[in-house]
Amino acid sequence: MDDISGSGGNDNGVHVNGHSACEGGRRKSCWYEEAIENDLRWCFAFNSILHTGASQYHNIELLDTKPYGKALVIDGKLQSTERDEFIYHESLVHPALLHHPNPKSIFIMGGGEGSTAREILRHKNIDKVVMCAIDEEVEDFCKSNLAVNKEAFCDSRIHLVINDTRAELEKRGDYFDVIIGDLADSIEGRPCYQLYTKSFYESTVKPRLSEGGICVTQAGPAGVFSHTEVFSCIYNTLRQVFKYVVPYAAHIPSKADTWGWVMASDSPLTVGAEELDARIERRINGENRYLDGKTFVSASILNKAVRKT
Amino acid sequence: MDDISGSGGNDNGVHVNGHSACEGGRRKSCWYEEAIENDLRWCFAFNSILHTGASQYHNIELLDTKPYGKALVIDGKLQSTERDEFIYHESLVHPALLHHPNPKSIFIMGGGEGSTAREILRHKNIDKVVMCAIDEEVEDFCKSNLAVNKEAFCDSRIHLVINDTRAELEKRGDYFDVIIGDLADSIEGRPCYQLYTKSFYESTVKPRLSEGGICVTQAGPAGVFSHTEVFSCIYNTLRQVFKYVVPYAAHIPSKADTWGWVMASDSPLTVGAEELDARIERRINGENRYLDGKTFVSASILNKAVRKT
Amino acid sequence: MDDISGSGGNDNGVHVNGHSACEGGRRKSCWYEEAIENDLRWCFAFNSILHTGASQYHNIELLDTKPYGKALVIDGKLQSTERDEFIYHESLVHPALLHHPNPKSIFIMGGGEGSTAREILRHKNIDKVVMCAIDEEVEDFCKSNLAVNKEAFCDSRIHLVINDTRAELEKRGDYFDVIIGDLADSIEGRPCYQLYTKSFYESTVKPRLSEGGICVTQAGPAGVFSHTEVFSCIYNTLRQVFKYVVPYAAHIPSKADTWGWVMASDSPLTVGAEELDARIERRINGENRYLDGKTFVSASILNKAVRKT
Amino acid sequence: MDDISGSGGNDNGVHVNGHSACEGGRRKSCWYEEAIENDLRWCFAFNSILHTGASQYHNIELLDTKPYGKALVIDGKLQSTERDEFIYHESLVHPALLHHPNPKSIFIMGGGEGSTAREILRHKNIDKVVMCAIDEEVEDFCKSNLAVNKEAFCDSRIHLVINDTRAELEKRGDYFDVIIGDLADSIEGRPCYQLYTKSFYESTVKPRLSEGGICVTQAGPAGVFSHTEVFSCIYNTLRQVFKYVVPYAAHIPSKADTWGWVMASDSPLTVGAEELDARIERRINGENRYLDGKTFVSASILNKAVRKT
Repeated sequence: MDDISGSGGNDNGVHVNGHSACEGGRRKSCWYEEAIENDLRWCFAFNSILHTGASQYHNIELLDTKPYGKALVIDGKLQSTERDEFIYHESLVHPALLHHPNPKSIFIMGGGEGSTAREILRHKNIDKVVMCAIDEEVEDFCKSNLAVNKEAFCDSRIHLVINDTRAELEKRGDYFDVIIGDLADSIEGRPCYQLYTKSFYESTVKPRLSEGGICVTQAGPAGVFSHTEVFSCIYNTLRQVFKYVVPYAAHIPSKADTWGWVMASDSPLTVGAEELDARIERRINGENRYLDGKTFVSASILNKAVRKT
Repeated sequence: MDDISGSGGNDNGVHVNGHSACEGGRRKSCWYEEAIENDLRWCFAFNSILHTGASQYHNIELLDTKPYGKALVIDGKLQSTERDEFIYHESLVHPALLHHPNPKSIFIMGGGEGSTAREILRHKNIDKVVMCAIDEEVEDFCKSNLAVNKEAFCDSRIHLVINDTRAELEKRGDYFDVIIGDLADSIEGRPCYQLYTKSFYESTVKPRLSEGGICVTQAGPAGVFSHTEVFSCIYNTLRQVFKYVVPYAAHIPSKADTWGWVMASDSPLTVGAEELDARIERRINGENRYLDGKTFVSASILNKAVRKT
Repeated sequence: MDDISGSGGNDNGVHVNGHSACEGGRRKSCWYEEAIENDLRWCFAFNSILHTGASQYHNIELLDTKPYGKALVIDGKLQSTERDEFIYHESLVHPALLHHPNPKSIFIMGGGEGSTAREILRHKNIDKVVMCAIDEEVEDFCKSNLAVNKEAFCDSRIHLVINDTRAELEKRGDYFDVIIGDLADSIEGRPCYQLYTKSFYESTVKPRLSEGGICVTQAGPAGVFSHTEVFSCIYNTLRQVFKYVVPYAAHIPSKADTWGWVMASDSPLTVGAEELDARIERRINGENRYLDGKTFVSASILNKAVRKT
Repeated sequence: MDDISGSGGNDNGVHVNGHSACEGGRRKSCWYEEAIENDLRWCFAFNSILHTGASQYHNIELLDTKPYGKALVIDGKLQSTERDEFIYHESLVHPALLHHPNPKSIFIMGGGEGSTAREILRHKNIDKVVMCAIDEEVEDFCKSNLAVNKEAFCDSRIHLVINDTRAELEKRGDYFDVIIGDLADSIEGRPCYQLYTKSFYESTVKPRLSEGGICVTQAGPAGVFSHTEVFSCIYNTLRQVFKYVVPYAAHIPSKADTWGWVMASDSPLTVGAEELDARIERRINGENRYLDGKTFVSASILNKAVRKT
């Protein structure tokens, strides 16, 4: 059926009103809805589904959301959004690289989206980045559809390997200055002790770190209540394996929560805010939007509620 | 970030579970939501937005919904769905054509979607169908994207005119056996007296009907409460212009309501159920899914609550 | 925290605006949401939860909804609403009672809400109504909270029995002119063959009908697609037990669907529209809002799509 | 209608399943929904509306939500929840009181909920707390319904005044060691420059501070994007009025955002983390759940994105 407005030529004003009312945003027809918990929903209006894909393991979608721009959704879980992924990726990458005196070789466990590689490549002294993802289709999807990371995917220092992370680390003979864990933790029914085990860090990750090497991993939600899900567990695991462990956190708007990371090493991780700023200035191309010396200092002092657990 | 499941090769079972849980439908991320009334919402999970378009007048979307298949949405209002549009279009087209002794020429006011033309063309005795829609882009969108109507759009008996309905009817000199109103009534702030006026039917529509001609129009929701919006108003308008007026109604699942149509003529509209069935048998190619003689008889007896208004 | 508007005495206008905007309905905070199907939601804004209760078997809620007034919800399924329950209850009760030449004694299977009893008691010739519900708490909840049925619950002709329907019918020695099934069918995982079995109607219900007695039951959704859930099944079951079986249907707005009932007897069920109207006039106190002779005739002619299944 | 389960005595297992499925949380019927932005929704399942009220200015509701316990909603905006209000109120009250050498008299602008008073009264050296709220009904509602603050409302050191905040401060002749702003900023169309004006702080608030007095106010969302709404504006306003100004922030889960406060004084605000902890130990009864010395130090170092604006 067609719009009845076709029946009269003299009501253009109404046409325009009808149309602009819609444009003005009163009608939001399409919603992306995520059950953050069973009884808690987080919903974005969106304009379109830009791309969809499926691999052996995952369903992948790229949505054009109204509040956060492009959003990557894997298996119905929001992974990151165009508008605020910089908070996650600057926080994941730069603290570890900046705490290392001279990082040249990096191993990314996961990182299929490409943003982690992109942030690493902003460091001038990087020679080699190995990025190990299990799912080639996710890789191809992101390479094709995430314009912001296209350059990173093409950089000659990037070595993309499609393999199981553990298998890849165990078969390699080379060493890395920094190993970065960019693996989702959000699969239901997947208890953290199984996946972030002491033995994995001790026998698989640590042996591949060069002298003074640093390991960092995203560690799930770190909110006043949500940190008990995996953040505390990962922190405690790493403390059993490394001498120095620094947890830190930042609020990510599109996640509706504070997110956590844990950095660990057998060398001390004590670089002050000013020295961090100096290293940022000296080593990183372009300007960070979120992370600087003070931001890291603040991020690495957890609030009492989280610290006590 | 990538899925942590990459870190272990031995947990395929969990993979499969996670994946099939998702496939099994527990996670419905994308919802189309329509505010039927201000405080009443009707929501479909959907898989993808197949096409979007915009014209001078309208935003157009074709969604692939889970409960109703492809759904055409114009300006945030659901127009029709693949799964149940046959109820609307069979009800709109066949009663009027079957009540006419020998309909050869038809004029469609609106009908941009093409389904109305498709149903008309199933009548063997049709010579000419003029379809007058105001919005060329909507037309093009439907022609390109609604596979089910592609044949109809290409039929040589179809004459598509892009023009204002009133202007077109007023400038034409030819006559039609049946004139069908397939115009949406759903634009907010657009009171029905302005658009379905006595003068429009008297001075514009009726003069273009041939001897014994029949006019029919969709007439909006016809539920126990919702019929007062426009259905009663259109019925009363047509009663002032035509000698014989037959309102009828049918429940359309995707509209979450009963829908109404009004058929009118200066010749009697009295064909019994058996004769309707005989004419269906004789005149219509293929088989109706919804409408037959008995269905129409039932549809044209309104319930007490609607009849009294 | 308090509203900052407390800080200025001169902004009453804004206060009023703020308040009336809210009153005017832009902010709908509380929604009742029902998953009609897995991927189809129906949502009412509501003002308050008037009462909640729980029994051994069920959770009960009485909501004050914006579109439909008070709504009775049992175990998260909408049972009926103040605004349109008359459609359901007039359709359930009056056709059977009107088709019987002189119904005096009625048995209600279920009917805990009291509305079925209320409609029965409007018939002047009724002597006895046995109402058999399993759940005393639901009974008490409805008696206390549904003002519209208070009178019915207190009527001396009503005999309320708390018992299992089958057990009650099997132990009784008396006969009924009409037996009415007002039992929900909506419990998940409860296939209709188990509950609306031929044996139940043959061995339990039919033996308690007096000569010329009529049995009627609500029969679930009867929409073009939804009728296959239970409606067709109940109809086919009753056809195996009774000589004459009449299915009929009506659209219930708050259910977002057409609802079905099946009436059955070993005596012919053939009363025309005029005679129905005459009996309504003669036998029923007060005026029906939905059902009259024509309405029933229309309701009992199913559309082709439903009829063919 | 009643549940069909009444018709069979032998299906208790199914009953129990049906019931526990519901209890187990698959059916969430009632949702509180808040539009955080126009295209961003935050939704809590809830069990019941515990209390509702209305005053001349506001609609008030107390909901029992599943994820956050009791939630106070004023005019459709979530004010605070039982489960995480401690973050907001500890952050609002303790930093200012702890930075003051010996706070004895406090003035609360707003604070109708009572939680601010409750936190203040935990300080042993407090003599007098004046709490000035405009809306007596909100006051009565909270006093009656928020059990956690009942004691505070009854404490003899609390002086509750129902008056416009500005009018009250301007007519008083006494001085306060700390003045706390606990006023919502969330009324639509209410630009912050109108309400948090320089003149208000300069001419109304500051004159009522005793020597060395400190003023603190909640300052709205302080997220990476949301801080530009009011937080930056309030900070800049206070910088024009006071010599020392300290903004700080904390993530509040039920708000789905980071929240901000600004503390200001003409005396230096430089107490280190250890001294803060010592003062907490010495001065505050009971134990803080969220705030300690380190938490405040971290909270008062804003991230680069917020700091730069």
